[in-house]
Order: sequence, then structure tokens, then C-alpha cells
Amino acid sequence: MSEMVKVALDAMGGDNAPVETVKGAVDAVNLKDNIIVYLVGTEEALNTELAKYSYPKDRIKTVIASEVIETGEPPVMAIRKKKDSSIVVGMKLVHDGECDAFVSAGSSGAILVGGQVLVGRIKGVDRTPLAAFFPTVKGPSLLLDCGANVDARPDHLLQFAKMGSVYMENILGIKNPRVAILNIGAEEEKGNMLVKETYPQLKNCPDINFIGSIEARDMNQGASDVVVCEAFAGNIALKMMEGVGITMMQQIKAGIMSSLRGKIGGLLIKPALKGVLKQFDVSEYGGAPLLGLKGLVVKTHGSSKHKEITNSIVQCISFKENNINEKIQDMLCLKDA
Amino acid sequence: MSEMVKVALDAMGGDNAPVETVKGAVDAVNLKDNIIVYLVGTEEALNTELAKYSYPKDRIKTVIASEVIETGEPPVMAIRKKKDSSIVVGMKLVHDGECDAFVSAGSSGAILVGGQVLVGRIKGVDRTPLAAFFPTVKGPSLLLDCGANVDARPDHLLQFAKMGSVYMENILGIKNPRVAILNIGAEEEKGNMLVKETYPQLKNCPDINFIGSIEARDMNQGASDVVVCEAFAGNIALKMMEGVGITMMQQIKAGIMSSLRGKIGGLLIKPALKGVLKQFDVSEYGGAPLLGLKGLVVKTHGSSKHKEITNSIVQCISFKENNINEKIQDMLCLKDA
Repeated sequence: MSEMVKVALDAMGGDNAPVETVKGAVDAVNLKDNIIVYLVGTEEALNTELAKYSYPKDRIKTVIASEVIETGEPPVMAIRKKKDSSIVVGMKLVHDGECDAFVSAGSSGAILVGGQVLVGRIKGVDRTPLAAFFPTVKGPSLLLDCGANVDARPDHLLQFAKMGSVYMENILGIKNPRVAILNIGAEEEKGNMLVKETYPQLKNCPDINFIGSIEARDMNQGASDVVVCEAFAGNIALKMMEGVGITMMQQIKAGIMSSLRGKIGGLLIKPALKGVLKQFDVSEYGGAPLLGLKGLVVKTHGSSKHKEITNSIVQCISFKENNINEKIQDMLCLKDA
Repeated sequence: MSEMVKVALDAMGGDNAPVETVKGAVDAVNLKDNIIVYLVGTEEALNTELAKYSYPKDRIKTVIASEVIETGEPPVMAIRKKKDSSIVVGMKLVHDGECDAFVSAGSSGAILVGGQVLVGRIKGVDRTPLAAFFPTVKGPSLLLDCGANVDARPDHLLQFAKMGSVYMENILGIKNPRVAILNIGAEEEKGNMLVKETYPQLKNCPDINFIGSIEARDMNQGASDVVVCEAFAGNIALKMMEGVGITMMQQIKAGIMSSLRGKIGGLLIKPALKGVLKQFDVSEYGGAPLLGLKGLVVKTHGSSKHKEITNSIVQCISFKENNINEKIQDMLCLKDA
């Protein structure tokens, strides 16, 4: 049997906590027998929710944390003040080596700050990007930074490209992944100042397979395996992708339901539509890891339901088994030296 | 009869020129009897294409321009050197007051540079944003800047908000349009440096109806009438919207066509799907004007087919009839003073 992967889960984080988070944890340990989940949350929440399920008792441990960091709270202050919050307690489990990973659907800001302060960066890493898989017609691609470091510098983006390559190659097994920079045109002279300064650095970097610029409209066509960008632009790209998908499906459903003819047709195409929906469903892809930390920290959508929580927990297995952090350290430290 | 609107059309611009551009011009004058199109292009292209159609001869004039600016050419150099190109000749018609507007599907860079150099900015306008309508479930909203001025400053974005409000109120008749700033979170402290500096300026501006931040995923839900942003972010948002729409429809069609059941269902839902497709079809919305120039310059997609060219020509009517430029000048000069 493979080594156990120990994942601390923020039971209190996200719009649907603790109901969906705890269910996600239970499903995860029932699905994979090499996972132990450390459920971090208030005593009442954990007891109430866990009482609903049957699960292997030795693989869900409860860790009581009396406080909760809310989404609106200023992150730095929240991490400093709420020492007994589920985020702080969960991250400390990773810092202390008791857990391999921490998963949370809670406050993005607190998770980003906590990652830096409580878990700490790998030596040689300047900024830790959020790296999210997104759907393309050729399978998932990786977008980073999709939300952690706004106003990043060119050398940060170069590190993101290296870390993204390591992640893509090891998690999805894509050899020599194609790396593109998110831009507003295909030509080398296009872009804002950041992109223009970053482009030659990427082009001259021997450690990555840089293929040039990618426009947002080509991302879902699978034109590259890794898309590198600054977090403001990346967050907009990712959220627009999610938003358009949701809006279009709403509209198509409403159109279908507006007539008897449509309803019958809708029943017939349901299996086909479901396939597309599934392909474009972000919850299938689990959460986004913060790359470059000494432990694994995964941020999932605030709106996560149990399925996304489960997927986010399960993805920690391959992160650990593939020694992603050691490989990132090797690439950044040795090759940069 | 209302006053004639004279539109110079770059017959040579875009991937499908001159076939689609000339057809678009012919359709426009057949559709609206208060339009005169000045077709600008090479003698051969104009003669060959125009020979295919019947149209009111007095409402399509040909203006010979022997050169063509290609998409890849460095814009400043192209505008300076190719004095007999369709873009330079067409813009001069606007500058000289012979035409009210110039429409082109050609090189974005050359159109942006040409607009500044050949047409000129309204006094008081620092930067001229590209303003594109985009589909929402509540009808079109306006996104600006969607591609003209990367690395803009906060005071530029404030001007964009004012110009966008004038445009939305007068072209679509939306009183006191809700203006939001494109951001990566709803809270005031979220965002990159540009957004954080711009936010209070928008909040304190009495001339606009500022409602705060908007996330990319809420744009198609119609959460605001005008979305203000810097051009790099705006271009990514707009192109992602287009790309996801195209990819999803491809995937849905492929799913439907993969089985007999799907094919029958597909026939039944065709009318409903068509409605959604039409709503999310960017060509329905015409081109994007460069706001703040002394004349009207409209950039349409490089991939424009005749329908989008026609719509882009027709939209020049309401721009002129509503005296958009005078209203922009009034708002920026008087109220800023």
C-alpha cells in the first residue's frame, strides 16, 4: 500500500461550509484508501456534520478550531489575530509537518497571506502563484497566476513558467509542456509593458518550452499546456471563462424550456449536453494549488460543493507522490544558480 | 428625410476583404436610405466586387487608395509611410470633414495610431478607448477600454467612465447608466494598484453613476451597464467571452451530432439554440468605436463577415444623430474645468 497522504481540510471555509466541506471529506476517504483527512473547525460543526455519515473512523481526524475567518476580513489582520481559526490551525498542521496539505474554500486573501506567513516559501521562490486547471478541447491546461500576486514583475512570471511546467509535466504527465504568455495579440511587439519585458526572458529560458503569446480566445482551444500571466489578468480570464459557461448554459436551458418542441429536443440531447457541461465544469478540476510553498496549500472556489472539495482533497495525492515541491526547488534553485 | 450620414469604409481591411467588406457596404445602403458609403480601396478590388451587386449608385462612392496596411506591420511606421493606404486615405476623409465616420476591420494598431494622428482627439481627452458592446442576459452592456490603451492611468479610466456613460445613455437610451470597474473581487480593497487608485476617483465623481467593482464572471449577467478597465484586462475579458462562446457551441454541436438521438433532438432545439447563438454573436453588435476622437472611427473584428460590416456602418447613424462627440466634449471640458 502506498504511503498515507494527510490532508488538513478547512471545514469552515466557503459559502457551503460546513455541510459540503464535511461531506466532501467523507467522500474523499471513502473513495481513496490512502488519504487521512484532518477536519479543522468548530466542535459543534464537526460533530453535527460527521454524525450524518459512516466512514472509516481512523481516516478522519477532528481538529478543533474555535474561530472562523470571514471572506470580507482584511487578510493580514485576520491571520495575525485569529490564531484559533480553521485557516491558521490548518496551515500550522502543514508547517509542523503533521499534514502534507491544506485545502480551503475560505477567504482567498487569508489563504494567500497564511501560505506566505505560516507555511512559508520554498527557498528561491519570490512569489507563489495560484495555478488552476481549465478546460480545453484537448484536455486540461494550466493557468497561473490566476489570483495571488497582482502587479507581479517579469522575473516573477519567469518563475511561474518554470513552476507551471514542473506541475504540468508531473501531475498530468505532459512531457515538455508548451508554455505561452497571455497577451492581447500574437505578435512579439504586442502587449503591455509587463508582457513586453517578460517575453524575451521566457524566450531565452532554456528550462521551458516557450511557444510565444496566446490570446484569451484561444485558451479553450488548447493552444498551449501552460498559460503564464499576472494575477489580475489571469483572474479575469478564469472568471470570465466560468461566467460565460454558466450564462450560456442558463440561456440554452431557458430557450429549450420555452416550448414543447424544445423540451422534447432537450430530453434527446441531454446526454450530449451533459458531456459538455461536465467538460466545462470547474468543480471537476479540483482546486488551485499555491505553487512554491514548503507544503501544499489548495484554494477551492468559495462556492464549492462536496464534489469539488473531494476532488481538491484527492488531487493532493499526486502532488505528494510526484514530489512537486522538491522538483520546483530543484528547478528554481539549481538552474537559477 | 434625415440628414445623410457619410461613412468611409476600409474596403481592404480584415481577413475577408474585399469580398465581405464590399458586400457589407452594399447591404448597408440597401438597408438604410440615409447612408452614403465611401468605399476606400484599390481600383481592381472595388471594381471587381462592386460589379457583383445592384445598389443605388449615388450612395456608394469609390475612393481609390493604392496601398494596403497589413496586420503585422508596425503601426506608426505604416501610417507614416503608406500615405496612399486605405486606412490613411479613409481617415483623412473624416479629418477633412468629407465623411462623418471611418469603419475598418484592418490592423488594430494602425487604426489606433491613425485615429490619434490623422483624426485627432477632442480637446480635453487624454486617451481614446475602444468601446465594445457585449451581450448580457439583460441586453447589451458597454466595455471600455477593450484594446486601445494598455497601461492606462487612473485619470484615463475616469475619462473612460464619463465617455462610456455618455455613449450608453445616448446610443442605447439607458438613463443614468450604472458604471462598474472591472476587478478581481467585490470589496473596495481588492484589485491591483491601478484599480485601487482609480476606485476612489470614480466613487467621488458626481457625473457618473458608479456602483463599485464588477467581477468578470458577473459581466454577462448584466450587473452593470458600463464596465471600465485598462485595455489589457479589457481585451482579455472580451476575447475570452468570444472564445468560450465559440468553443462551447462547437462542443455542443459535436455532442449532438455524435448520435442519431442527439441529431433528432438537435433539430428540435435548433430555434432555441439559434436565439442564444444570436444573443452571443458579436457580429450582431457591430464594431467598437474609438471614443474621444474628433470624428468617428469604428474598429470591427478582423474576421468580420458582411453582416458585421453592415452593422458597423449602420451604427454610425445614431452616433452622428445623437451628437456623441459634442456631448463627450461638453462632459469632459466643461465639467472637468
